[in-house]
Amino acid sequence: MFKFVVKHQSGKARTGQLITSHGKIATPAFVPVATQATVKALTPKQLEEIGFEAALCNTYHLYLRPGADIVKKIGGLQKFMAWNKPIFTDSGGFQVFSLKDGLCAVNDDCVTFKSHLDASKHIFTPEKSMQIQRKLGADIIFAFDECLDINADYETTKKSLERTHRWALRSLNEFKKLNKDKKQALYGIVQGGRFLDLRKKSAQFISSLGFDAIGIGSIFGDPKTESKKIVEHTLKFLPENKPKHLLGIGAVEDIFTYVELGIDTFDCVLPTRLARVGYVFVRPESGGRLSNKFRYRITNSKFKSDSKPLDTKCDCYICQNFSRAYINHLFKAKELLFNTLMTYHNLYFFNRMMKEIREAIEKNKFSGLKKKWLK
Amino acid sequence: MFKFVVKHQSGKARTGQLITSHGKIATPAFVPVATQATVKALTPKQLEEIGFEAALCNTYHLYLRPGADIVKKIGGLQKFMAWNKPIFTDSGGFQVFSLKDGLCAVNDDCVTFKSHLDASKHIFTPEKSMQIQRKLGADIIFAFDECLDINADYETTKKSLERTHRWALRSLNEFKKLNKDKKQALYGIVQGGRFLDLRKKSAQFISSLGFDAIGIGSIFGDPKTESKKIVEHTLKFLPENKPKHLLGIGAVEDIFTYVELGIDTFDCVLPTRLARVGYVFVRPESGGRLSNKFRYRITNSKFKSDSKPLDTKCDCYICQNFSRAYINHLFKAKELLFNTLMTYHNLYFFNRMMKEIREAIEKNKFSGLKKKWLK
Repeated sequence: MFKFVVKHQSGKARTGQLITSHGKIATPAFVPVATQATVKALTPKQLEEIGFEAALCNTYHLYLRPGADIVKKIGGLQKFMAWNKPIFTDSGGFQVFSLKDGLCAVNDDCVTFKSHLDASKHIFTPEKSMQIQRKLGADIIFAFDECLDINADYETTKKSLERTHRWALRSLNEFKKLNKDKKQALYGIVQGGRFLDLRKKSAQFISSLGFDAIGIGSIFGDPKTESKKIVEHTLKFLPENKPKHLLGIGAVEDIFTYVELGIDTFDCVLPTRLARVGYVFVRPESGGRLSNKFRYRITNSKFKSDSKPLDTKCDCYICQNFSRAYINHLFKAKELLFNTLMTYHNLYFFNRMMKEIREAIEKNKFSGLKKKWLK
Repeated sequence: MFKFVVKHQSGKARTGQLITSHGKIATPAFVPVATQATVKALTPKQLEEIGFEAALCNTYHLYLRPGADIVKKIGGLQKFMAWNKPIFTDSGGFQVFSLKDGLCAVNDDCVTFKSHLDASKHIFTPEKSMQIQRKLGADIIFAFDECLDINADYETTKKSLERTHRWALRSLNEFKKLNKDKKQALYGIVQGGRFLDLRKKSAQFISSLGFDAIGIGSIFGDPKTESKKIVEHTLKFLPENKPKHLLGIGAVEDIFTYVELGIDTFDCVLPTRLARVGYVFVRPESGGRLSNKFRYRITNSKFKSDSKPLDTKCDCYICQNFSRAYINHLFKAKELLFNTLMTYHNLYFFNRMMKEIREAIEKNKFSGLKKKWLK
């Protein structure tokens, strides 16, 4: 099942609820990434304790290892990773098209690529992506699209977009065959690079096909003003009532920017990946601001005897119990627990921020909150 | 504070309670090892959830990094590692004497050694070990002893034992100066290698000094019959009413053997270290037995689509939620969560076994339980 209910609208920003076969997601939501069916270093119990209602897994990675048939045999992703809540899977396209030259070749019918694990040859088609995502069993899946370099020229982008549109249709047709039980929802993806007319064309075409919801692809963090212009332009041509996901975006300021424009969900590896190399996210009350990207590095020796928590204004399990000195020690001692404590804190930071964003929207105070964070 | 109460005696096996400044430990107990102030890959919350009441940290490692002064500044080990329960620290001797030739030189006054981290030169004396352990602030600390190769000859062992005894006295004298507030308890350590007369001499000497409790050092798992004979002989000369710790021992069969002889506490890296390389401990009802050392390797590809839990008769969080296929996948994918799930399960196995041992002793059914496990 899949339903989207808008709860409160304030400008273009809105709160709502995504209702899936495995439960509800309050929006706007940040969806943490569980590439290989695990949010790195956290148990699903910890993820739930932090307060998350969904996770996003990568089709490419799970297709290669352990394989979709194995995940299906165990009972689907929820059972496999012991996360009995909504799961998204991406289409596999982004990872395949991110492979280096020579590892990936595309024609109108399919993409041929070599596994980054053992160089074995594989083929993805829109139909195959749907079949794999069906076996994986996520609640929310994505159409198979071609992901181009954002700097590609107009002609290349236009041709690629036409392919993405043909693939959108093929994805949808295959999905309809597989999803007769209505267990899954399919998001169409808008592409079009940095060209506003192509973005418009894509938004109109994808909107016309009857997807359950819309994803906007190939938006990168930088340059911020151009990215914002593209998303804003795209959104004009998308149906208001459908949920909108912004793929791969998750910097703090980007979330404020795009929530304000009406985006409902985000996924990004930023908080988890940065956690593992020692970046701690901190709230504005503790000195987090645009100029320091809301973070500092705990790996610096100046923290080695600092008894304060990672963020003095954070109420997470980590900040209530552990000092900077301890976490700095875990880093220096190469202890596994370092990754767990850091990931937990950073994800808590994001989840709490999203909660505050939802509360602010419902009180029509979003722009005040945005000012407080991005001042 | 430190107190030991024997609750129930059945043969020489007994249940009891160790009462420390940070709480109680039901005995016989297995104490998991938290070398660098963390049981690798677990949060203290998970350790508590498993049911443990104590952990053992390594003085040598914490002295080198982050340093005892930093731990003290943060408020002691309990505060530092967010474990508000009893903590043991070893004396640092075992690690120093385990350093390779050229990195460690001993004379009657002290041990000079080079750090395994940066080859910097350091000196340990019995007094210094007490001072460091005082700063670390564990509830239960150990006298500084010389750890010899178990295969050392009689003359070498005898000379070393005399030194260990002089050091026991020096440890105790320094401890008395530092521990006027009675916050910590000091365990004396019996040495004597494989020579029964030296073990007797050591047991009698250490018993005469008024330590809070006794540790038995340099007992190795193999050969089992000789180790058992040494411990059995040693115990004859130790005061019954004092708690007894067997250092570094923790194979399943050894725990049954030594609980039966009257040992109260054990520490060992076995369940945690083996977890990280893929060995799963399994209960006798699930095929765990002496011949397979109560374990199997989950890393084998034959488990890649196995939907069963690690141990079908285990009721831990891991076995209630995750399949062998998932944990095999985490191993192959080099995911950090692998270490957490494996460590959690293996420690749960040990803690549950200890609980069953305590229950069996109290019902005078220990030998039946031992038969069930070691048949």
